Amino acid sequence: MVLSTVVCGSTNLAFELDHNHTNGTNVVTAKKEQSYNVRKEIALGWNKHTPCSLDIKEPEVNDELTGATEAYMADVLARYTDRWLERTKHNLGYQLNSDFNYDALGPLQRLSINNAGDPFIAGNYGVHSRDFEVGVLDWFARLWEINKNEYWGYVTSGGTEGNLHGLLIGREMFPDGILYASKEAHYSVFKVARMYRMNCVKVETLASGVIDCRDLKKCLLNNKDKPAIMNMAIGTTVKGAIDDIDLVVQTLEECGFPRNRFYIHCDAALFGLMLPFLNQAPHITFKKPIDSVCVSGHKFVGTPMPCGVQMIRIEHINALARTNVEYIATMDTTIMGSRNGQAPVFLWYALNRKGYNGLKKEVQNCLILARYLKDRLREAGVSVMLNELSNTVVFERPQDEEFIRYWQLSCQGNIAHVIVMPNMTKKTLDTFLDELVEERWIWFKDGKNQPPCVASDIGKENCVCPLHI
Amino acid sequence: MVLSTVVCGSTNLAFELDHNHTNGTNVVTAKKEQSYNVRKEIALGWNKHTPCSLDIKEPEVNDELTGATEAYMADVLARYTDRWLERTKHNLGYQLNSDFNYDALGPLQRLSINNAGDPFIAGNYGVHSRDFEVGVLDWFARLWEINKNEYWGYVTSGGTEGNLHGLLIGREMFPDGILYASKEAHYSVFKVARMYRMNCVKVETLASGVIDCRDLKKCLLNNKDKPAIMNMAIGTTVKGAIDDIDLVVQTLEECGFPRNRFYIHCDAALFGLMLPFLNQAPHITFKKPIDSVCVSGHKFVGTPMPCGVQMIRIEHINALARTNVEYIATMDTTIMGSRNGQAPVFLWYALNRKGYNGLKKEVQNCLILARYLKDRLREAGVSVMLNELSNTVVFERPQDEEFIRYWQLSCQGNIAHVIVMPNMTKKTLDTFLDELVEERWIWFKDGKNQPPCVASDIGKENCVCPLHI
Repeated sequence: MVLSTVVCGSTNLAFELDHNHTNGTNVVTAKKEQSYNVRKEIALGWNKHTPCSLDIKEPEVNDELTGATEAYMADVLARYTDRWLERTKHNLGYQLNSDFNYDALGPLQRLSINNAGDPFIAGNYGVHSRDFEVGVLDWFARLWEINKNEYWGYVTSGGTEGNLHGLLIGREMFPDGILYASKEAHYSVFKVARMYRMNCVKVETLASGVIDCRDLKKCLLNNKDKPAIMNMAIGTTVKGAIDDIDLVVQTLEECGFPRNRFYIHCDAALFGLMLPFLNQAPHITFKKPIDSVCVSGHKFVGTPMPCGVQMIRIEHINALARTNVEYIATMDTTIMGSRNGQAPVFLWYALNRKGYNGLKKEVQNCLILARYLKDRLREAGVSVMLNELSNTVVFERPQDEEFIRYWQLSCQGNIAHVIVMPNMTKKTLDTFLDELVEERWIWFKDGKNQPPCVASDIGKENCVCPLHI
Repeated sequence: MVLSTVVCGSTNLAFELDHNHTNGTNVVTAKKEQSYNVRKEIALGWNKHTPCSLDIKEPEVNDELTGATEAYMADVLARYTDRWLERTKHNLGYQLNSDFNYDALGPLQRLSINNAGDPFIAGNYGVHSRDFEVGVLDWFARLWEINKNEYWGYVTSGGTEGNLHGLLIGREMFPDGILYASKEAHYSVFKVARMYRMNCVKVETLASGVIDCRDLKKCLLNNKDKPAIMNMAIGTTVKGAIDDIDLVVQTLEECGFPRNRFYIHCDAALFGLMLPFLNQAPHITFKKPIDSVCVSGHKFVGTPMPCGVQMIRIEHINALARTNVEYIATMDTTIMGSRNGQAPVFLWYALNRKGYNGLKKEVQNCLILARYLKDRLREAGVSVMLNELSNTVVFERPQDEEFIRYWQLSCQGNIAHVIVMPNMTKKTLDTFLDELVEERWIWFKDGKNQPPCVASDIGKENCVCPLHI
């Protein structure tokens, strides 16, 4: 059983998770409970809810005269905004770019902009941003090399909606198809398989995190009678590993799957906006036999709320477009129906400002900084791996949960990662490195603790634990 | 085949749908094609894409000096904002309240706030608004009468996500359960049934739009061997009809379905925030044998982007919480994973400001105005229906598509509706009424056209067509 200890809404804003994994075993760590003012305990299958400090209160009768509610809210918002700004500076582990400025779009917050339904068919509701949306989609069509007449797509509420849509189209095309995804694919893929009642095969990965095509071959040959719905991780969340589309297509062909027996969905949440700007990278292109691609907008571009872009070959949308919903005078081809009309404007604004050249510079800078971080970690004797063309630096999990929380590292078992996003600077990484080196000295000084072995996670060649040094 | 003609991104901003239904038959109306600068034609299963006027262009080399991109974008945004403000004033047909002011939350647009995963388990990512979210959820728990320890919920990206979640929980509890929904339930319910591969039975409705419990009884008795997953429309989108929970529960009991053989999901997108404030209304309460309720935030409260609240009995969440996603150190209990962290703050702010009393006044005002509109329409000889406790005024479909577009009326077959939301004033409704009366005189003056018969839509007693007058 996984048991976590969580603080909810304490007044001092120390509401982070008291995380609880030690060398892969899940145990309760109680040591910091006092200092973190624990008010909430949650376990898998058990969810205890105690009062939250941000209770919504009924305004007093004379509230308009006293202004008490406004004052209370202003105070809360000031404290949280301060905290959020501080936390934004120390986020190293999540695929979020906080380096954006949409001040020019302030007036949008006064409007209820809703792109309900299909972006190419305007409904009667007039306050929509479909023109911006189509502008954004056309831009991505150029990026991923598909003609405007040959794609269909929309701006989603994030990467998961892209996966929900792409895999649904795949399943509608091949109702008895089997979903194949590497075991390091995003967790939403497996959630979707369950939601859609699809048979799903988890394929092994290499140490780098990419799909193991030898294992894929075995899996395909075991299920030759069923069409294949492939999820490509471009790249994986933990290691930033990029599944090789060409190799997967070749494997499909070798296993006797012709083009009309497979569907390829590319979950390119982060790298869909990075690979196209790297000359040496394998391109995400509809010239290859792929069927749908999704990317997140809040990741590499950066937006105030999650959003994304989903693009598929236009002929496939027919599989889903069987219901004409007269109510909104539009076809119900999206997952969400009512859709955030602000997000396409954010994306349109950011892409106009940056352009291909601006994004290219940002991508290159991220890769340079990622290599710098990897080299410095290696110099400091830390087990570390950085995949080619990736901005995800994977290294041994720090021993102190407070340190992990402070730098908002994302961890899995014995490994942690830093994802170098455009908002990161060399200075921030230097501070992080200096602190890590200092802390490691404390963790390991008396020899009782030793750096964990991460050979099974990132390969022997990258592990410098006492066993592999 | 349904064929529509749509304008995409014309420079004069006349980009509305040239709608095409005449007396229930779908035909192409070409008469306005010239004036609407048609650049796009779309049909069910056929989607032709021509260039959009808001193409994203690569900034010129000297763009930073000339400021050309910024100037271009400022110009576009000013034109669209002007258009959006105008269109906001003339939206009568959609369930969106545009009467909000979140200027105090402007700084949020500079932050990437993400409530990934479960609201009650904070992940390592520090820039989240879970405290606000839990505050909002607790408020709704009081509203819908469930103890804080007994509910689980989250702030969704809108009503569809609520239905996706509620019906998924129902299906997880009863994998072979049959989904029952009235034929006037929201279209997303039937979309979800298809996505989840659930057997779905469409139940007949009465003329008011509520589920016909006599037909439900027949359907249930035909499928006695399978558990029942009920979708309650509270209320329907077209007629604002509110399915009667008590009567449905009674019907289930009469058909021999004990409590452990049915799941009730309440799709209370609009009315979930209205009924609790009407003394005489049937309350949405977890004291009744219901299992989940969802409501939209962008509808009655009003927010800049779609959002909503989903609430279920805590014991049910176990059905979904089987996967612990260590990556985000949180349980994957939501549909979306990465979630908009701005939305809970909007809701928290609006609910604090309005309070129960403020919302109560707004609800009462909407109902008063809805009755006023109904009475004035009836006086003018227009077929009209207004369900009790509803703000949705259903009437004969206007004969002119330009008129429908201008007032953004939502239509279905021979009927249209106005949904009286808090942003509407008597003055706006009077203008609409005056224009409608004037236009009707033109449409029907020579006797060639006659008002459509809507007896089958809203009942003989509400129809004043030549046949039923």
